[in-house]
Amino acid sequence: MLRIGVCGLGTVGQSFLRHITEHQSKIRSNVSVDFEISMIADRSIKSKKYPKNIAVTNNILDMASSSDVDIIVELVGGIDASYELLKNAINNGKHIITANKALIAEHGDELFSLAKKNNIYLGFEASVAGAIPIIKTLSNSMANEEILSLAGIINGTCNYILDQMSSYNLDFNDALDEAKKLGYAEADPTFDINGMDAAHKISILTSLVYKVASPLKHIYIEGIENITPMDMIYAKELGYCIKHLGITKKDGDFIESRVHPVLVPIDNVFSKINGVKNSILINGDKFGTSMLYGNGAGGDATASAVISDLVDAINYVSNENKTSNYSIGSIGTSSLQIKNNSDISSPFYLRIHAEDISGVMAEITNILASEEISIEAVTQHEPNDANSLIPIVMITNAVKGSLIDDAIKQIELLEHVKDKVYKIRVFKIDEK
Amino acid sequence: MLRIGVCGLGTVGQSFLRHITEHQSKIRSNVSVDFEISMIADRSIKSKKYPKNIAVTNNILDMASSSDVDIIVELVGGIDASYELLKNAINNGKHIITANKALIAEHGDELFSLAKKNNIYLGFEASVAGAIPIIKTLSNSMANEEILSLAGIINGTCNYILDQMSSYNLDFNDALDEAKKLGYAEADPTFDINGMDAAHKISILTSLVYKVASPLKHIYIEGIENITPMDMIYAKELGYCIKHLGITKKDGDFIESRVHPVLVPIDNVFSKINGVKNSILINGDKFGTSMLYGNGAGGDATASAVISDLVDAINYVSNENKTSNYSIGSIGTSSLQIKNNSDISSPFYLRIHAEDISGVMAEITNILASEEISIEAVTQHEPNDANSLIPIVMITNAVKGSLIDDAIKQIELLEHVKDKVYKIRVFKIDEK
Repeated sequence: MLRIGVCGLGTVGQSFLRHITEHQSKIRSNVSVDFEISMIADRSIKSKKYPKNIAVTNNILDMASSSDVDIIVELVGGIDASYELLKNAINNGKHIITANKALIAEHGDELFSLAKKNNIYLGFEASVAGAIPIIKTLSNSMANEEILSLAGIINGTCNYILDQMSSYNLDFNDALDEAKKLGYAEADPTFDINGMDAAHKISILTSLVYKVASPLKHIYIEGIENITPMDMIYAKELGYCIKHLGITKKDGDFIESRVHPVLVPIDNVFSKINGVKNSILINGDKFGTSMLYGNGAGGDATASAVISDLVDAINYVSNENKTSNYSIGSIGTSSLQIKNNSDISSPFYLRIHAEDISGVMAEITNILASEEISIEAVTQHEPNDANSLIPIVMITNAVKGSLIDDAIKQIELLEHVKDKVYKIRVFKIDEK
Repeated sequence: MLRIGVCGLGTVGQSFLRHITEHQSKIRSNVSVDFEISMIADRSIKSKKYPKNIAVTNNILDMASSSDVDIIVELVGGIDASYELLKNAINNGKHIITANKALIAEHGDELFSLAKKNNIYLGFEASVAGAIPIIKTLSNSMANEEILSLAGIINGTCNYILDQMSSYNLDFNDALDEAKKLGYAEADPTFDINGMDAAHKISILTSLVYKVASPLKHIYIEGIENITPMDMIYAKELGYCIKHLGITKKDGDFIESRVHPVLVPIDNVFSKINGVKNSILINGDKFGTSMLYGNGAGGDATASAVISDLVDAINYVSNENKTSNYSIGSIGTSSLQIKNNSDISSPFYLRIHAEDISGVMAEITNILASEEISIEAVTQHEPNDANSLIPIVMITNAVKGSLIDDAIKQIELLEHVKDKVYKIRVFKIDEK
């Protein structure tokens, strides 16, 4: 009988307990030894509902040393306490399942290496993109060839906000309020909208796919706070929609690893990923382009990923499947460097606000020409009234980030250009 | 040292040999025992290129009894010889990987049961949707809850043809010729366009998900031969596109299992699956709606799936992973019945050709009303000239197939209605 300890009885924890009860016959058919929930830890356990006859504690650290627990399901979130819990638990021979992306992004290298040393199962499917089985698919079906690139809509809050801005011509703050009302954004949505949540996820995926150490420190991170309804309209005119993507990609001896808004061609499948859904596109040397799509958050979806790890953990402990920690063994061992964002080439979308005076466009195009940046598309509307600024929007050829930044600096110095120039990378998906 | 025998050196076989050579270090990192290609069988082995120092034979049945082979990779296709090969091989204790959908759809129940009895690994990831890891995902990540429904674009040839008809206003035969020219349709495309290929795949998925015996015999099968450019145009006007789907779905004590054209709402993600790509949407009780998308055919994509099975097979034989044949154990054991197509409810698209005479529409709507079928949308254009028939196109509410067939029979008897009435089911995707 394997004994499972659950840390954290929030939304996911409650869904986990329901799932394990409702679908226990399915779950039991996928393992060869019996299991039970033996302990629950939650800071405010007294206010929570949980099954009777189970040991409880309000100190999650108790579980790391409890003799009543073989497998710990960590659903607490946060970093410090979870880190201590997991490190102690692994050292005490307990197997781990976690949904904690911040923890894995910050301390994954150390925890994976500790788990490998102690022959411990460490499952983290639920830490990236909820119910999408991206960790298992990359670790199994896609692990036998080179992954050329991976790009994903991995923050449902951002995707919902961008979708609302585009569909209903809302500005950022109104769309954010709407997302909060519907529970798609948290009361403090900072880490979602500034890109940090997506950065945690792309860091974990970069670890898994390219084995580099601590990618999070080197990831370029940009959120969606500066996108305006105007950008949505201009992007559409030019045949694009705006999405917030996480990208990791091999480029020679370097890895590109970044999260930021991008323009995606309107006929690409990414453009149809609406609302809070997540979607990850993976390019393999042999399998070509594949995509996984599904619920990136929510109690049931996340718990479903936790349960799939639980089955792996039980089969690991019972010696039915020892392969499930193969992929974590080599994390952090690669010497590949993460490329500086200023060295990464792509086409750029530029939004420039200028006074409606003849000659401004010529000054701008001269600057771009002097930097050998060519303009692939441009769109400019009539000003609303005689005194208002005109937005000039253009798409360049593929150039390095540093080059576009040089050009932007010069453009911003022009007498008739007002406000900051806003740039968004254009994403090219080479489907195989 | 595990010895691998390859049966069939066609496109997939050649890709398989290349993949295993090019990415051997990745593959070796996922297994704990060594392996080698020890034997190759192909009817015309003399005309094929293959690595030196390997035993060869032009009789694939030799391999079933060869003492030099532990794992057989069956890439021959066809049914009779492959069936004999696999049955003998399993009885002789050899593990099996096959890409043969027709074989698995026809004889899967027997082969799975034989494999289970003999503790044999039997991998068939490559038999459905090429590089899309649908078999492993359903067997692992999605195996711990109820699958409510599964629907997929699982025939690339059909999808390419429909895409071309829609994008360039081509008729079926011109689009088929185009597909043949580009290698997207075979010289004899019968089994693709009449739905049989998709039926093999949905039969395998129905076996895996719902465990029913021999679903193929009971699947409703309809191809795309009767779709006209006119249907494409009318569907678009009504907010839909036309796709060919395979569907399997639980409905109480019954299973719906069918392949046929459907109208899909234009804002659904299915509508953006273009060209020869495949895409499978799965609804789970807990994980909600997920989709897997990728290359459904092609040598490299199919070989990639075969390689992922090979790694599972090696880990099975070396006792590192015994879970990979859990899911096949119960195939064929369910008593769930497959529902008759005439009992399945959905909205219908109807295309009726009538003479341009007043009162025709009233006659048609009276018939529908008498069957308690209501019209949700209708579109009708001017006739091209005074003598030509007018196409009347409508979408009904959700009704049983038998009811719509009764109504169609009566409509076809009307004096001013000419030609057969053409019906297409409208697909409702309830995303969770």
